[in-house]
Amino acid sequence: MTGPGQVRVLCLTPNPAWDVTYGVDRLDPGEALRVRSVAARAGGKGVNVARVVRALGGDSVAVAPVGGLLAPAFAADLEAAGQPASLVPVAGALRQAVAVVPEHAGPDDGGHPTVLNEPGAVLSEEEWGLLVRTAVARAADRPVVTISGSLPPGTTQARFTDLVRSLREAGCPVHADVSGPGLLWAAEAGADLIKPNRAELAEATGTHDLTQGVAALQALGARDVVVTDGEKGLAAFAPGSTAPAARARLDAPVHGNPTGAGDAAMAALAVSVGRPWAERLALTVATSAAAVLQPVAGEVDPEDVRRLADRVLTENVNDTPRTTED
Amino acid sequence: MTGPGQVRVLCLTPNPAWDVTYGVDRLDPGEALRVRSVAARAGGKGVNVARVVRALGGDSVAVAPVGGLLAPAFAADLEAAGQPASLVPVAGALRQAVAVVPEHAGPDDGGHPTVLNEPGAVLSEEEWGLLVRTAVARAADRPVVTISGSLPPGTTQARFTDLVRSLREAGCPVHADVSGPGLLWAAEAGADLIKPNRAELAEATGTHDLTQGVAALQALGARDVVVTDGEKGLAAFAPGSTAPAARARLDAPVHGNPTGAGDAAMAALAVSVGRPWAERLALTVATSAAAVLQPVAGEVDPEDVRRLADRVLTENVNDTPRTTED
Repeated sequence: MTGPGQVRVLCLTPNPAWDVTYGVDRLDPGEALRVRSVAARAGGKGVNVARVVRALGGDSVAVAPVGGLLAPAFAADLEAAGQPASLVPVAGALRQAVAVVPEHAGPDDGGHPTVLNEPGAVLSEEEWGLLVRTAVARAADRPVVTISGSLPPGTTQARFTDLVRSLREAGCPVHADVSGPGLLWAAEAGADLIKPNRAELAEATGTHDLTQGVAALQALGARDVVVTDGEKGLAAFAPGSTAPAARARLDAPVHGNPTGAGDAAMAALAVSVGRPWAERLALTVATSAAAVLQPVAGEVDPEDVRRLADRVLTENVNDTPRTTED
Repeated sequence: MTGPGQVRVLCLTPNPAWDVTYGVDRLDPGEALRVRSVAARAGGKGVNVARVVRALGGDSVAVAPVGGLLAPAFAADLEAAGQPASLVPVAGALRQAVAVVPEHAGPDDGGHPTVLNEPGAVLSEEEWGLLVRTAVARAADRPVVTISGSLPPGTTQARFTDLVRSLREAGCPVHADVSGPGLLWAAEAGADLIKPNRAELAEATGTHDLTQGVAALQALGARDVVVTDGEKGLAAFAPGSTAPAARARLDAPVHGNPTGAGDAAMAALAVSVGRPWAERLALTVATSAAAVLQPVAGEVDPEDVRRLADRVLTENVNDTPRTTED
């Protein structure tokens, strides 16, 4: 575990959300359903990363563009949670992400939540520039920077590249866990670490083959690539080799809510920069699994992380003793 | 059609909502769905009634308790729509009602919207009193008062009775279209008109038999009872008789969105107080059907109302020439 104050992480959420959870008896499609319980909080993958960084003993600041009716609630929620933040005021309205969580399985959902994700507000050129400058200003102490989640509608490769490059030029390692075209843009922009899951890798590169997918990202300019594969664990690839530097997985699967596992992985990778890959991946597997045990994303119990770390298997280690951020 | 300014209706929504509509490709339960379009507006059955009253040429004021983050949006939306309103400030947060409208039919919804209704905020004793006093104050010109929709959690029969009686004592006819126990409370409180549909009547009285159900409401104290039955039309019952004073239906069904039909009916009944039942029901059928032709609740095209009025069949009329509000 990292000691308090030792690792600083700036967690950027380009397309944050107000996360609303509706508890219903059953999801009966085509009907009017009574919502039994309503919970709401500041959401977005980078917010989850920031929370887990602090649970792991690091310091984090959440950076996100917010505007509209829900912006005050977003800010108030982070403050109440003790989450330092720099929120960039923008004109467009913060989006909602509504998770409908059934008490009982419906005809078609197997009891799984149905999530309704609004697209989010478009940022103007000025607003994107303000977001970049705000992140750079908060990065004066050269933290690790994570960029997580979807990109707002209208985000161009030029904008995203400007974000990544400005932060790297400020001396920060930049880790990206972005969906859609952003994964390729992150590779091309020279992000220090990108973390696709197998599905994202296949969708972005057009191949289901792990080695070929990693090679494709490396050909674009990717540096470290960590590929996650659910219960099968993760593999880390350093530049110049499609043979993994290290792999790790849990000895047996844990069961629970996997929605925050990827963000927990990002937090662990961020706080462990500079350590050997085997150690980084062990922490990442343990933290990810600990997140699965929590009912909501963005939470881990440090005790679970410690306990699960003993269950991590590292395999086929071709260890690069130091990672490229050194 | 009523002439402008001739009929004034105060439309109360005890449990208003911020109506959000999400357009999705398909409702795939248990998945993360991209919302393609987001629309939002002030909602609640009384708001719909108020809008239709104005479409019919009457004057309406919407009265509702609102608080929390969405209250400013609710107020702004009514203002932008040119809807006069008296909004009562309360501590609890205005609820959302989220309609998920699929472009294509999903595995179980037949293409119909799935609506997620939050329960709404509890009103304190003081807040309920302020709601009653505000309604009475806006009723100085003795408008027809409609009370529509669900009642907030925690509403007691005593509170509801106080509302109905205070307005009747102020000289206003009170029409109620409330769900759940409110229907029986409205009957007991002596509301001048109650408007259940067949399902609501059966649920409240425990019998599917129309005559017995009406008799049960009359036994509690109901005055005029108008029972709606979808395509089958409506029947009006005056106190003291379980034989309908009049019935009316459209010659053939119209197709579209029936969600606002009941509120349109309330508007028509409100603006036609004092006219013979056959005329009232004809306007009500025509307005209801015109509402079905609109994609959203709370809208009617006056031209459609006029045109559909020619298609109304009044049957088995045992006309009480004047209704009891005279």
